Amino acid sequence: MIYDHFFSAVLARLHAERRYRVFADVERMAGHFPHATWHSPDGPRPVVIWCSNDYLGMGQHPRVIGAMVGTAIRMGAGAGGTRNISGTNHPLVELERELAGLHGKEAALVFTSGYVANETGIATIAGLLPNCVILSDAFNHNSMIEGVRRAGVEKKIWRHNDVGHLEELLAAEAQERPKLIVFEALYSMDADIAPVSRICDLAERYGAMTYIDEVHSAGMYGPAGAGIAAREGVLHRIDVVEGTLAKAFGCLGGYIAASADVIDAVRSCAPGFIFTTALPPAVCAAATTAIRHLKASQWERDRHQNRASRVKTVLNAAGLPLMTTDTHIVPVMVGNPEKCREASELLLAEHSIYIQPINYPTVPRGTERLRITPTPYHDDALIDALAQALVNVWKRLGLPLQYRELAAK
Amino acid sequence: MIYDHFFSAVLARLHAERRYRVFADVERMAGHFPHATWHSPDGPRPVVIWCSNDYLGMGQHPRVIGAMVGTAIRMGAGAGGTRNISGTNHPLVELERELAGLHGKEAALVFTSGYVANETGIATIAGLLPNCVILSDAFNHNSMIEGVRRAGVEKKIWRHNDVGHLEELLAAEAQERPKLIVFEALYSMDADIAPVSRICDLAERYGAMTYIDEVHSAGMYGPAGAGIAAREGVLHRIDVVEGTLAKAFGCLGGYIAASADVIDAVRSCAPGFIFTTALPPAVCAAATTAIRHLKASQWERDRHQNRASRVKTVLNAAGLPLMTTDTHIVPVMVGNPEKCREASELLLAEHSIYIQPINYPTVPRGTERLRITPTPYHDDALIDALAQALVNVWKRLGLPLQYRELAAK
Repeated sequence: MIYDHFFSAVLARLHAERRYRVFADVERMAGHFPHATWHSPDGPRPVVIWCSNDYLGMGQHPRVIGAMVGTAIRMGAGAGGTRNISGTNHPLVELERELAGLHGKEAALVFTSGYVANETGIATIAGLLPNCVILSDAFNHNSMIEGVRRAGVEKKIWRHNDVGHLEELLAAEAQERPKLIVFEALYSMDADIAPVSRICDLAERYGAMTYIDEVHSAGMYGPAGAGIAAREGVLHRIDVVEGTLAKAFGCLGGYIAASADVIDAVRSCAPGFIFTTALPPAVCAAATTAIRHLKASQWERDRHQNRASRVKTVLNAAGLPLMTTDTHIVPVMVGNPEKCREASELLLAEHSIYIQPINYPTVPRGTERLRITPTPYHDDALIDALAQALVNVWKRLGLPLQYRELAAK
Repeated sequence: MIYDHFFSAVLARLHAERRYRVFADVERMAGHFPHATWHSPDGPRPVVIWCSNDYLGMGQHPRVIGAMVGTAIRMGAGAGGTRNISGTNHPLVELERELAGLHGKEAALVFTSGYVANETGIATIAGLLPNCVILSDAFNHNSMIEGVRRAGVEKKIWRHNDVGHLEELLAAEAQERPKLIVFEALYSMDADIAPVSRICDLAERYGAMTYIDEVHSAGMYGPAGAGIAAREGVLHRIDVVEGTLAKAFGCLGGYIAASADVIDAVRSCAPGFIFTTALPPAVCAAATTAIRHLKASQWERDRHQNRASRVKTVLNAAGLPLMTTDTHIVPVMVGNPEKCREASELLLAEHSIYIQPINYPTVPRGTERLRITPTPYHDDALIDALAQALVNVWKRLGLPLQYRELAAK
């Protein structure tokens, strides 16, 4: 093919910039999470996963697996069609009802992923509002950025979590112009939380719609796992809640929950929803089971926070440069793409600990980090082993030990 | 919410234009396909599905379900992360190897859906080629249109399957300008097949890359189910093959197969791939099992064509206005959105036959149709009952019986 040199040049550039990513081939073992098998170039090896977004280990919960298995046996593997053409399956209808209830909204709509939910959800909602302007937090996830871009409307970026700046931008718009504020409840890479209540104040003052991404918080925060907006008591002031079934709920898929008309309009108008196969019934049933379990059970949320807290205490005591956070995500700053990759490689090769390096473009250059995600199933011994391994690697790579607050990027 | 009237106005417009879609809530029964339970407003009712894209019934194949169930029990429900961050699971790696082998390419890349595969695949490939021009068939699927749009490069639309027009457009470009020809092997709504070999001739003559969508053909045509390009003996002349795991393979997800460098470049650069959770191991294992089964077994393909052929014969004999096709999809023209919907409703309510109406924007206005998809599991009695029901409905609605070739749109 005469075109190959274009693609090999792209790859050479990624290698040169130390941005070439290697995916670890991991085989999870239900019932043994966070233990897994890493299919290394030299053959299978046991590892402990410290970077999973199956935050609560629900992906291995016997009831969740049971629902997946039982539904697959009863209804088969796939949905068999798009939502409109024979793909709307009964477990999917039930899942949407469950999600609406979870977030206290009239209706919900499930997508094949949280990425698609944001991308097509934001694009469609903003696109249906005449002359809409989107106000987007600077640190919003790529899926939201793509949604904003695809909306094809004017956008204004407010400095991350800076409500003063958001108010400036809102105040500059005519009162009657439709405005959509899009932001995350919990930012996954910095692990900080949005000032949700103050954003709602501004939305009401300036007549804006609010769209919150609870991808890294639904299931894990708030009463019954309804998320950060619920915890802050402002869920009823949020117009659209977006979330995922692939993190706290341990499955696959994304969703939005909102008023019946918003959901029905997105359902009717979003190409990324209309023209794609529906989620398999077995996946939907598994997700519904996870949501229902986490509505009733507080144990996972309490244990999750307890484990995160202990990881922070132990790593801080060991002198590792943690970013300060109030959440379950523990970012350890490295600040160099090459050393970040080396740290990850040493952890895997010598300590059987799997933590993927987080480099550009997922985070800004110069803020490369290890992003640790404790789960309810990481016990004290695993945490202590993690601290020892990190200290060992930090010394090997000549990285600074001794904690100090890192400058914000 | 002050914004509600915008969304209710959108819905009112859809209702007024007779474009408001109602999804049928269907519960499939593994082992009994195409029989299913329709959760009607009045309660559950048995129906026969005649519009499934689980074309070969692989979604209910005991081996496929067995792989899904076994893998879920062993590895859990979800993948637990993006491909880069702990989500690359071993069944997914095996699935990509299997897909590369199926299409005779060096490598393959799996996405959460065929929609995303096209959208982000086309956008990324074209975007990486300097000053690329995309040549896109006029009837390409929405996911390809979105991919072309998102590539942000110049596009030229060639008249559907018109290689003369394609050549005109190619000849108008400088020889050294990168060109990407994107087209489908089998167009699902008209059920016709692309002149793949002649398109390859032109691609070689004018130095273009070829991107073929085998969503409605992989698994069903060609040796070992490798698709239309394989059947025509031109697979080696195709640069990128795109396909789905959700139709002939009965599961969920999409993919591209190509040279190692193309795949690696898309893997490294496509936002819609990088920032989304990996497909669950159980879904991957099920898909791999379906692909392997269909590689070895010709029975499904032969029986599928046999059933499609019998449906056409019987419906033609009954005087129904079939569109002529050489494929497994049987479109019956109605040509009116309201009657198309009514026909579908009557079939469901009075004959327990589920065929979703296909209206604008899926097909152009004035070409509304019923799109019938026979599978290996539709027996003679079901086909005869279908013909009787259609004739009855056609009479009730005053639609013309007596076959005649319908004008091309």
